Amino acid sequence: MIKAKIIGAGGYGGVGITELLLGHPDAKINALVDVENPGMPISKIYPHFTGFCDMVIVAPDDPKAQEPVDVVFMATPDGVGMKLAPAEIAKGAKIVDYSGDFRFNSKEDYAEYARRIGRNTEHASPDLLPQSIYGLAELHRKEIKKDTKVIGNPGCFAVSCILGLSPAVKNGLLEQNSIICDCKTGVSGAGKKPSPTFHYPARYEHMNAYKLAGHQHVCEIERELGKQAGHEIKVTFTAQVIPLCRGIMSTLYGTLKNKMTEAQVLDIYRDSYKYDKFVRVFESSAPIGSPHVRGTNYCNLVVSVDERTSRLRIVSYIDNLVKGQAGSALQNMNLLFGLPETNGLDKPGIYP
Amino acid sequence: MIKAKIIGAGGYGGVGITELLLGHPDAKINALVDVENPGMPISKIYPHFTGFCDMVIVAPDDPKAQEPVDVVFMATPDGVGMKLAPAEIAKGAKIVDYSGDFRFNSKEDYAEYARRIGRNTEHASPDLLPQSIYGLAELHRKEIKKDTKVIGNPGCFAVSCILGLSPAVKNGLLEQNSIICDCKTGVSGAGKKPSPTFHYPARYEHMNAYKLAGHQHVCEIERELGKQAGHEIKVTFTAQVIPLCRGIMSTLYGTLKNKMTEAQVLDIYRDSYKYDKFVRVFESSAPIGSPHVRGTNYCNLVVSVDERTSRLRIVSYIDNLVKGQAGSALQNMNLLFGLPETNGLDKPGIYP
Amino acid sequence: MIKAKIIGAGGYGGVGITELLLGHPDAKINALVDVENPGMPISKIYPHFTGFCDMVIVAPDDPKAQEPVDVVFMATPDGVGMKLAPAEIAKGAKIVDYSGDFRFNSKEDYAEYARRIGRNTEHASPDLLPQSIYGLAELHRKEIKKDTKVIGNPGCFAVSCILGLSPAVKNGLLEQNSIICDCKTGVSGAGKKPSPTFHYPARYEHMNAYKLAGHQHVCEIERELGKQAGHEIKVTFTAQVIPLCRGIMSTLYGTLKNKMTEAQVLDIYRDSYKYDKFVRVFESSAPIGSPHVRGTNYCNLVVSVDERTSRLRIVSYIDNLVKGQAGSALQNMNLLFGLPETNGLDKPGIYP
Amino acid sequence: MIKAKIIGAGGYGGVGITELLLGHPDAKINALVDVENPGMPISKIYPHFTGFCDMVIVAPDDPKAQEPVDVVFMATPDGVGMKLAPAEIAKGAKIVDYSGDFRFNSKEDYAEYARRIGRNTEHASPDLLPQSIYGLAELHRKEIKKDTKVIGNPGCFAVSCILGLSPAVKNGLLEQNSIICDCKTGVSGAGKKPSPTFHYPARYEHMNAYKLAGHQHVCEIERELGKQAGHEIKVTFTAQVIPLCRGIMSTLYGTLKNKMTEAQVLDIYRDSYKYDKFVRVFESSAPIGSPHVRGTNYCNLVVSVDERTSRLRIVSYIDNLVKGQAGSALQNMNLLFGLPETNGLDKPGIYP
Repeated sequence: MIKAKIIGAGGYGGVGITELLLGHPDAKINALVDVENPGMPISKIYPHFTGFCDMVIVAPDDPKAQEPVDVVFMATPDGVGMKLAPAEIAKGAKIVDYSGDFRFNSKEDYAEYARRIGRNTEHASPDLLPQSIYGLAELHRKEIKKDTKVIGNPGCFAVSCILGLSPAVKNGLLEQNSIICDCKTGVSGAGKKPSPTFHYPARYEHMNAYKLAGHQHVCEIERELGKQAGHEIKVTFTAQVIPLCRGIMSTLYGTLKNKMTEAQVLDIYRDSYKYDKFVRVFESSAPIGSPHVRGTNYCNLVVSVDERTSRLRIVSYIDNLVKGQAGSALQNMNLLFGLPETNGLDKPGIYP
Repeated sequence: MIKAKIIGAGGYGGVGITELLLGHPDAKINALVDVENPGMPISKIYPHFTGFCDMVIVAPDDPKAQEPVDVVFMATPDGVGMKLAPAEIAKGAKIVDYSGDFRFNSKEDYAEYARRIGRNTEHASPDLLPQSIYGLAELHRKEIKKDTKVIGNPGCFAVSCILGLSPAVKNGLLEQNSIICDCKTGVSGAGKKPSPTFHYPARYEHMNAYKLAGHQHVCEIERELGKQAGHEIKVTFTAQVIPLCRGIMSTLYGTLKNKMTEAQVLDIYRDSYKYDKFVRVFESSAPIGSPHVRGTNYCNLVVSVDERTSRLRIVSYIDNLVKGQAGSALQNMNLLFGLPETNGLDKPGIYP
Repeated sequence: MIKAKIIGAGGYGGVGITELLLGHPDAKINALVDVENPGMPISKIYPHFTGFCDMVIVAPDDPKAQEPVDVVFMATPDGVGMKLAPAEIAKGAKIVDYSGDFRFNSKEDYAEYARRIGRNTEHASPDLLPQSIYGLAELHRKEIKKDTKVIGNPGCFAVSCILGLSPAVKNGLLEQNSIICDCKTGVSGAGKKPSPTFHYPARYEHMNAYKLAGHQHVCEIERELGKQAGHEIKVTFTAQVIPLCRGIMSTLYGTLKNKMTEAQVLDIYRDSYKYDKFVRVFESSAPIGSPHVRGTNYCNLVVSVDERTSRLRIVSYIDNLVKGQAGSALQNMNLLFGLPETNGLDKPGIYP
Repeated sequence: MIKAKIIGAGGYGGVGITELLLGHPDAKINALVDVENPGMPISKIYPHFTGFCDMVIVAPDDPKAQEPVDVVFMATPDGVGMKLAPAEIAKGAKIVDYSGDFRFNSKEDYAEYARRIGRNTEHASPDLLPQSIYGLAELHRKEIKKDTKVIGNPGCFAVSCILGLSPAVKNGLLEQNSIICDCKTGVSGAGKKPSPTFHYPARYEHMNAYKLAGHQHVCEIERELGKQAGHEIKVTFTAQVIPLCRGIMSTLYGTLKNKMTEAQVLDIYRDSYKYDKFVRVFESSAPIGSPHVRGTNYCNLVVSVDERTSRLRIVSYIDNLVKGQAGSALQNMNLLFGLPETNGLDKPGIYP
């Protein structure tokens, strides 16, 4: 059994990976670590765990938190994982970090990202950056090798945008500088910390755009799409919050270089993802919506072409807390340990 | 592998048991039967099944629908199961029926129920009634034997009320005629058929009491509680709809015969359910709510005593579509086939 | 024009009375006072006011906050109004206080209430208590006279319960100690302060009972019903939160002393409220729900009798922020100044 | 007093104009006409009207429905108004039609629209088309004259897109063929008729794009923007449904011809709408969302420029049932009768 430790166990990202690990055939949780609520059983904070996981949360300096494990999930904000990773690696663990800390392979790229989110631009463990893998398995699974030590789990918006646009840019379908990502997220994307913006009475019946000045996920979207395209790509990105809990719907636009039909694009997309269990491609008339990926690790892509204006339009749906976070993290763990990629993730979800 | 057939596969009750059977280690679906949408893959109607269950729905007269199976889930409205059951039993199947058709053991009791819901009071298969078992496993699992042929799956409100009140009445804690069941259900309890009442704009921000003249689940609640008490019991029952999808919260009141503390009642409740994996008992200060049983087969009971007025108050939470429907059905299937009761049901759900 | 000052202008209670005063023919706002966000236009915090009320919030010690006015709405938590009231009265103002500070007429009654909510039991302005009026206009409008100085605006749950039960107890319909108030409130009742409990992801799809050990509104419910009955009354009270924003639905139970039909009770209720514009009485089959009072000062009462158990059941609907708070406050202001009670309140709301 | 008749009184569009007319100082309702529920008081269907409007719905052939009035609101689907308008005009009425019937000024333009929505392309009253005015008051108020007989009330999405883009195209800011309208609507936009898509359990937690093959509002958006620009304009348009009741958020993109700052665009927008009471322009950092126009006739426009990609991005918020329907209709009525444009509409709404 793979022994796992979760740092930041008390947040939504920690809960998500805990739920998934409880159902994983080859892994078990060794410690739940958090700076908040140490000494409290996780099931007191999240009562749905009662009888399934009544493990007590331990503080980072607790001996239990120090035990060597095989994998550490850093369900922590920017700046935490980069400090803790070296010691964990030294004890033999592999790292899956949820934040932006390990999504970049150079100090310079990290600095640009850090600048955007208003953080210290100096990385605490710059030596780890060159060996870190960007953990979007559909694009990078082959790079995850036996000796890989660090995975930078991708941002939730980034997952939806990159999976939605990658086949188009890889195949050179789109005009330079024509990409727009209009992204809508459920409220759980903001995490468990209460705020006036996400207070129930302020949020029900409330949709709005935010961070219009720029969102941090743009960096990784442009980098990854650029790699696929073989040249620099810039996108216009809009983040919007929708009054539901789980789900991202990203509507992705690009001008087609040449006239194409929906059927032609569908072929390209289906071919691109034919070996990717977690990506499902649909024609524009399919009645797909966010609940069809809810609670699952799937990305549903709906392909359409606006022939009047020669625009490609992909609608990309994920569950921000699964494929956009804990699910991708587990998928990465499976790859790190040579397990079938779908272990513990092969579930349809529930409806309604 | 147990071969299962689902009749009424296209409704929420059918979807629920399909989801559960897909994750069951010892059962598989042989046929999805419905009068609506025959010829259509279930995954076209419920796209979350894409890649998991793309089986085509068959009409009742389709040869596929006629194949002998081990168990038939009748996810059908009142009046259907009673007509279809004899032929299925003749072919060797066991029946779990979701409706009121087999919740009563005599023509007379059925007639009283049928009268309340405005249906034909004549039962189509009266011979089956004496051998039918009321499928609330916590109370009746011992009666489910190798040769049991028919289970009447309990009503969703009934599950929440009976589990919530049974220890109190069995132990004679309550005064005669003092029981009030104030029940709140999510909208999925009304099924998948659209109606003006459950149209999104009419239902969001809308809570209301309904069927104030009387609800059909009262029959089984009074019958079951009466059995536990050893004497007739009458309850006042209020059904209310709440703007959420899944969940029943039943607030159950009864006047205590003798002064008791919460701790004393807690002891009785914990003792009553000590062997029941799917019932969890909590003290009144526990922060329990409907999401903590969402998507699961659990019933959470919160015990409190209003000492000022000498009233017992139990707050009972279930997921109406799982413990209140498909989950109980699967639990009954497990019992019918001598499997561990928790097979395919032992999951904590997801949060948030 | 009546000059009004709102203390606690930045909370939901302040916003509510601001909205109502903007539409009132005989009153205008002189100052918006709050300890938070002084110097900020109210329309920056609540952008729906842009162009309607761009008045700047002033701190309590701001000269603008000191200007004499005709009426002060204390939209403040327990303990604030009792300290500020004497000085305002000295300057000639009348007070409508939202908290429990002036809902009681003696130090002793206040102390009992304060004890329940865990506050200092000493009242800061005990001399004002005997002259304060409990501001449920339907029961006390005649006591509000030209020289009335202080109104204790009623609690939101209390409004729904007292209006729902008053005709029954006044007419002696119910057995001693048989009353149960099963109350459900929308989330706005908790105010604008964010908390883990009311964080959107934690609250959507979440209904639960809370404060099972006792709710502070019970004091005023028992006091007022006792006055109507002419003898002491005790009730069992349950507070529950429902995932909607505005609305209280209180389901009120009492055992009938004598056999009565719904029609007989309806007559009594209709007669009781025949001069009360803001109370509407409906038979049990009327399709009434919380949206039908949303955004309005109305209380809708649905009358039913469970003849099998001889219980009266009243379902009482209000908007917790209007009839349960700012609307009652404005109704009280109208009475204090001899205006028609419905001024500024005579609106049907919007649907859906 | 202006005498008004509402045809299609039982739908959301009829309810909306009824609510507004009840609060209008210069108009009163003469008849509520509908083919459904004739003989029933409107307040039985919409109980919030109880005591405000208990008028009985009459069938179209009822004598009451035939009485001459000053204005007829056709809250009816496509194809109805064009048949009824001539007779009403003959009796002296002015027409405000909610559908697409009178949004075009020639048979040919109407035919193109009708083709898109799959209707008979022949217009029933082609003679009225040249004199009909497209009722977006901000753009066409000067064309509404004393003798104007017919107004084609604009589509809800169209209102949000045209108001959001009009200043940019009129001032020639955008590159040819660069406009994308990413539109999100609340569920009430689908009207009151229940459907599987808008059934509460199917819609809560569900966001999705629909009609990807083309939406009928595109015709009027392109026509109106083309008029402002002075040349043909084509847009890519995406319709999306969001799980809330009221509100449209349209995120509008266009590539800037020349480098511009947000401040420069803000100046242009503020100048464009300086005389338009119902349009409010905000900078990109303003915390604006859909609830700030809820229940009101306002359009809130948030201006931003993505300087990295030289794109203008306008986020346009309206209440689809008010500014997107009944509010615009009333605004048009005010103009038709020479009244102040804001009569009956000058309200901030309620929050939260």
